[in-house]
Amino acid sequence: MAEKSLEELAALTGGSVKGNGKARITGFASLDGAHPGDITFAAEKKYYKAAASSRASAVIAASGIEGVENVLLVKNPLLAFARVVAALSPDDRPSPGISARADVHPGAKIGKGVSIQSFCVVEDGSEIGDGTVLYPGVCIGKGALVGAGCVLYQGVVIREGCRIGDNVIIHCNSVVGSDGFGYARDGAKYVKVPQRGIVILAEDVELGACVTVDRATIGETVIGRGTKIDNLVQIAHNVKIGEDTVIVAQAGIAGSTRVGSRAQLGGQVGVAGHITIGDEVGVGAQSGVTGDLPSRGVFSGMPAIPHGEWLRAAVVFPKLPELKKKIAELEKRLAELEEGPKGQKGQEG
Amino acid sequence: MAEKSLEELAALTGGSVKGNGKARITGFASLDGAHPGDITFAAEKKYYKAAASSRASAVIAASGIEGVENVLLVKNPLLAFARVVAALSPDDRPSPGISARADVHPGAKIGKGVSIQSFCVVEDGSEIGDGTVLYPGVCIGKGALVGAGCVLYQGVVIREGCRIGDNVIIHCNSVVGSDGFGYARDGAKYVKVPQRGIVILAEDVELGACVTVDRATIGETVIGRGTKIDNLVQIAHNVKIGEDTVIVAQAGIAGSTRVGSRAQLGGQVGVAGHITIGDEVGVGAQSGVTGDLPSRGVFSGMPAIPHGEWLRAAVVFPKLPELKKKIAELEKRLAELEEGPKGQKGQEG
Amino acid sequence: MAEKSLEELAALTGGSVKGNGKARITGFASLDGAHPGDITFAAEKKYYKAAASSRASAVIAASGIEGVENVLLVKNPLLAFARVVAALSPDDRPSPGISARADVHPGAKIGKGVSIQSFCVVEDGSEIGDGTVLYPGVCIGKGALVGAGCVLYQGVVIREGCRIGDNVIIHCNSVVGSDGFGYARDGAKYVKVPQRGIVILAEDVELGACVTVDRATIGETVIGRGTKIDNLVQIAHNVKIGEDTVIVAQAGIAGSTRVGSRAQLGGQVGVAGHITIGDEVGVGAQSGVTGDLPSRGVFSGMPAIPHGEWLRAAVVFPKLPELKKKIAELEKRLAELEEGPKGQKGQEG
Repeated sequence: MAEKSLEELAALTGGSVKGNGKARITGFASLDGAHPGDITFAAEKKYYKAAASSRASAVIAASGIEGVENVLLVKNPLLAFARVVAALSPDDRPSPGISARADVHPGAKIGKGVSIQSFCVVEDGSEIGDGTVLYPGVCIGKGALVGAGCVLYQGVVIREGCRIGDNVIIHCNSVVGSDGFGYARDGAKYVKVPQRGIVILAEDVELGACVTVDRATIGETVIGRGTKIDNLVQIAHNVKIGEDTVIVAQAGIAGSTRVGSRAQLGGQVGVAGHITIGDEVGVGAQSGVTGDLPSRGVFSGMPAIPHGEWLRAAVVFPKLPELKKKIAELEKRLAELEEGPKGQKGQEG
Repeated sequence: MAEKSLEELAALTGGSVKGNGKARITGFASLDGAHPGDITFAAEKKYYKAAASSRASAVIAASGIEGVENVLLVKNPLLAFARVVAALSPDDRPSPGISARADVHPGAKIGKGVSIQSFCVVEDGSEIGDGTVLYPGVCIGKGALVGAGCVLYQGVVIREGCRIGDNVIIHCNSVVGSDGFGYARDGAKYVKVPQRGIVILAEDVELGACVTVDRATIGETVIGRGTKIDNLVQIAHNVKIGEDTVIVAQAGIAGSTRVGSRAQLGGQVGVAGHITIGDEVGVGAQSGVTGDLPSRGVFSGMPAIPHGEWLRAAVVFPKLPELKKKIAELEKRLAELEEGPKGQKGQEG
Repeated sequence: MAEKSLEELAALTGGSVKGNGKARITGFASLDGAHPGDITFAAEKKYYKAAASSRASAVIAASGIEGVENVLLVKNPLLAFARVVAALSPDDRPSPGISARADVHPGAKIGKGVSIQSFCVVEDGSEIGDGTVLYPGVCIGKGALVGAGCVLYQGVVIREGCRIGDNVIIHCNSVVGSDGFGYARDGAKYVKVPQRGIVILAEDVELGACVTVDRATIGETVIGRGTKIDNLVQIAHNVKIGEDTVIVAQAGIAGSTRVGSRAQLGGQVGVAGHITIGDEVGVGAQSGVTGDLPSRGVFSGMPAIPHGEWLRAAVVFPKLPELKKKIAELEKRLAELEEGPKGQKGQEG
């Protein structure tokens, strides 16, 4: 753990210090887990009371906090906290070097400062950019390109020909470039359509653990710059995803669909194939997107509809038995009314 | 890439040439990605306009296309395209041989022409059939049998005793034969029920990446011939799946359930345990199957109901708040009507 | 396979023998798969007929069964069967020893009787407890602690600093300690919040295959004693799960949520972040939990509501088009009635 003064952390985050800029910060913690020497953060005013009773030596916040001596004032406390943590506790990247227990083909091109650890396999024609780390058991297929500054954790597989941009992070046991799920019918049998395309991950993409990204049938499956994908997500062949999009765990996107930039797909969302989701679209967890969605909307449900509509309908759903009963009663009462005048007529007659 | 004449490709696919059978085909592409020398395909008439403006040297289609000089006429263009791609760009299978970096037990029986790559583990009593490829890091447990002509990609694990038929393909990091999820209650605690069965994958099965197929408690979990399973699918213990069935990504089938032949389960479908799904059943994406489904139906929703019914109900769902309001209004108006005559009576009295 | 007398099995399970206690039991099977020499079980009375026609030499049941000569009488037949199977067919654990093909750092502390198989990586500062088995390709990160009596199957990764209790079982290709999915916005871009916490799995936890458990941002992600987690489940950062809870395949729990003890989450359930699910809660398959759930309830649907309510509403759902039509008819008939008197008035006038 590095040690910094509060002033140094202010310079690092573009913030200012309210209190003692010379205070020594030696660690970081949550509001309630902090000890003296730690810095913590209060993302919103609702956490200010907890901040006041925290034992932390400083709090990152967007304004002064009553009862807190040292505040690191910034516009975006979470962002500043991310930077402070990275400064106090830098990534523990392994030393460069190629393990004698790795299998690196002489035809692979390895950059400077690369770490290739035990039981990795780097095949012919592949390239690994400067400073990239391959943790144990990573496999890089023939002709695959991995950029500079990437971190590929244990068990990741990049199949042949795929292209990974700079500063990409891929967590354990994820698979990039598995065959797309494509078959032609021959009577009742399925004949495999060879999957001859690739996957392109642009720079700054992060994939969680056990994520699967299928190679295109022809052409490319593409995940755009800065897009972040959580664990156990499925991206099918020929999907194109824009930049700075977020896809939460266990979501799945079917073949040839396009998802825009700055979109957010919730956990366990399913998206049908061959459709288009616009930029800045939000999709609620577990929703099923069955058709195109225009930019900047928020959608929920299966099939997905505008989120507000879905919320209002979902509230009524549990009342369905009651509504059904009311309709039956209305029918009965109405029938009686309809009968009524006739009866009266009869009496009148 | 191999080079073929259009005539040769016609012979290969059982089709005929309209145009120049001597045309040299050197590659394949999508309609809009094609260059001269490429062959492409138009699966349906709606693509004929795009075919006419494609730069491809030939188009595979079910009929002649206005504006396209060379057409490879076949009944099933996608099937023909699959075969043409396989002919032009054969699988790049690694050379036979056992890597010095693999750990192959002397008690394992290895067929002819097998490729066992770096860091594979093949345990005692297992058998690997002729021509099978084990990519790096594949583990074959004790006594497991793998057929001929199989391709097991990086990180696949076949646990002890399981049996894999000929020509099976399994993508990266999938697991065959993990323990079924079975426990007996002992008060509040769970005691593991030992899972002593196996998994059988029949010939021509394909499993995607990060698929899990659990071994049976006793007996077998079975996936029938030609069944194709997409990424991240869960098959629980003692499940039996028929032939030529298709299961799309992230679907899950609970224990002891039977799924028929030529069925199609959509993405993220969940199927309850101990039920039976008939032959040729279709289940829409994200549906939840909670009871037996008869053969040849199509079902959707949670719980799954006939697809047409589900579609009609799903259209009404967003109108629930409006329907609720209408019912309240009807009640009010009806009450007024019911009151009305009394009022009139009062006036009459 | 060990051989036991029925008497011995009765002693082992705390049961008693009805019939011949000297009967030799040489195997176990399902009711319909049994051969002479096998023991089987009938968990409930509905299986007694099948038990009577089984070829098994003995049946485990809670009472005598007409037509069955040898019954092992116990309170909980499934629990007794679990113990009988474990006795007849003990786990085939590999011999202790560290493979010459493993990469074990000299700074790792390895207990007695440990098996570390080919291509495992055990990093500096980690500890492996007595009798633990690491199947091929398991990776134990720096400073990670693995208890005694654990079984980690092929391809499991325990990332740095995580702590695994005694007698934990983790199935193939599961990942413990991958980074939590946490980012701060910097304009449109996402900046990674370093994930510096760990994962703690208490004793007797079992994780299925391809499970992902993310490390905490700060502090710990915790899975309590005896909790059992099925394949392809996602546990996000900072989640805390109690003891003896069961989570079925493909369920996912979002960040910072707490799940109580003895709870049961069905397959494909999704649980939102930052909420609390009480003890002994049941959640039906595919449900989506969007808010706190009190202890001891059963919930279903998305959003999850009390199970009974959900069941009753789900039955009405397919009738929505019919209800909508009835409402339209009621409106029409009511309008006619409302018109009616006016019309009559007109005629009267």
